[in-house]
Amino acid sequence: MIEHKNTLKRLKTIEGHIRGIQRMVEEDAYCIDVIRQINAVQAALHKVSAQILDAHLHSCVTTAIRGEDPAERERVLEEIVSIFEASTQV
Amino acid sequence: MIEHKNTLKRLKTIEGHIRGIQRMVEEDAYCIDVIRQINAVQAALHKVSAQILDAHLHSCVTTAIRGEDPAERERVLEEIVSIFEASTQV
Amino acid sequence: MIEHKNTLKRLKTIEGHIRGIQRMVEEDAYCIDVIRQINAVQAALHKVSAQILDAHLHSCVTTAIRGEDPAERERVLEEIVSIFEASTQV
Amino acid sequence: MIEHKNTLKRLKTIEGHIRGIQRMVEEDAYCIDVIRQINAVQAALHKVSAQILDAHLHSCVTTAIRGEDPAERERVLEEIVSIFEASTQV
Repeated sequence: MIEHKNTLKRLKTIEGHIRGIQRMVEEDAYCIDVIRQINAVQAALHKVSAQILDAHLHSCVTTAIRGEDPAERERVLEEIVSIFEASTQV
Repeated sequence: MIEHKNTLKRLKTIEGHIRGIQRMVEEDAYCIDVIRQINAVQAALHKVSAQILDAHLHSCVTTAIRGEDPAERERVLEEIVSIFEASTQV
Repeated sequence: MIEHKNTLKRLKTIEGHIRGIQRMVEEDAYCIDVIRQINAVQAALHKVSAQILDAHLHSCVTTAIRGEDPAERERVLEEIVSIFEASTQV
Repeated sequence: MIEHKNTLKRLKTIEGHIRGIQRMVEEDAYCIDVIRQINAVQAALHKVSAQILDAHLHSCVTTAIRGEDPAERERVLEEIVSIFEASTQV
């Protein structure tokens, strides 16, 4: 699937970014620069999550809501709320 | 609506919390304690957002997805993704 | 203190913003618009926290680190880390 | 340095976690489960940032604040605030 290919590509880029940060730590890079690179990885991961959520809403969630099983409808909606709740928490 | 009453009650509590933080600042409270109270308000606001999202998914989003207008379906799903994207961003 | 005045002013603006969101809920505004306003308040609160942290670093933290009490130095540094760990930005 | 070894170990664990998520995507795992694993990685990254910040405060920041260069003191404090402003926790 095209979605999968794009998601995998992003995850491989992120994996490379993490290895780059490991090298920075090994080479004793300035702490603040390392933290900034970690922030960049977190932002990239958040974009991957949003992309997966997008695909999920257009497939499973749409199917469940148009379907006839109220428990399944409830389940998919609750999952969206729980994912949202976990997305920023102090 | 019951949902509205609960949401309003939470927002009034948060308003009172903000006024409490103003008093802390006026009375020269310890900075870290003020920041912790601000964190608590942010967490409470995030819960209100999750509660509103929950109601929205069960009403507008369900109606749109079960409806016959593909553009409207697309619109409500895109909004969910955009809200999620804005929920944590580095 | 000038810092205090500025912080208080921002907190009063935020309090007004919260009241505006209450009116939106009472007037049955569109859910996504309410969530966006809540996001804006969270971002404003994060800026207030950053402003307070800035003042704290220039006063208490600087005094403690230049001081002769190692336990006090340790305490203020640990607080900064704990505030960072708990931190969230919208 | 012991700090470095611990940080590197965590980053290698995170790299393995990212590869695990790639496999989940390849094997068509449930979207919400993938998003939850991404959240776990973001939380782990936030802990690494906090650990690096801790080391930074005890080394560079302490040295700068105890030192005699006001511009350098200002620089390290501003960096802490900017890192805090950009910070996110999952």
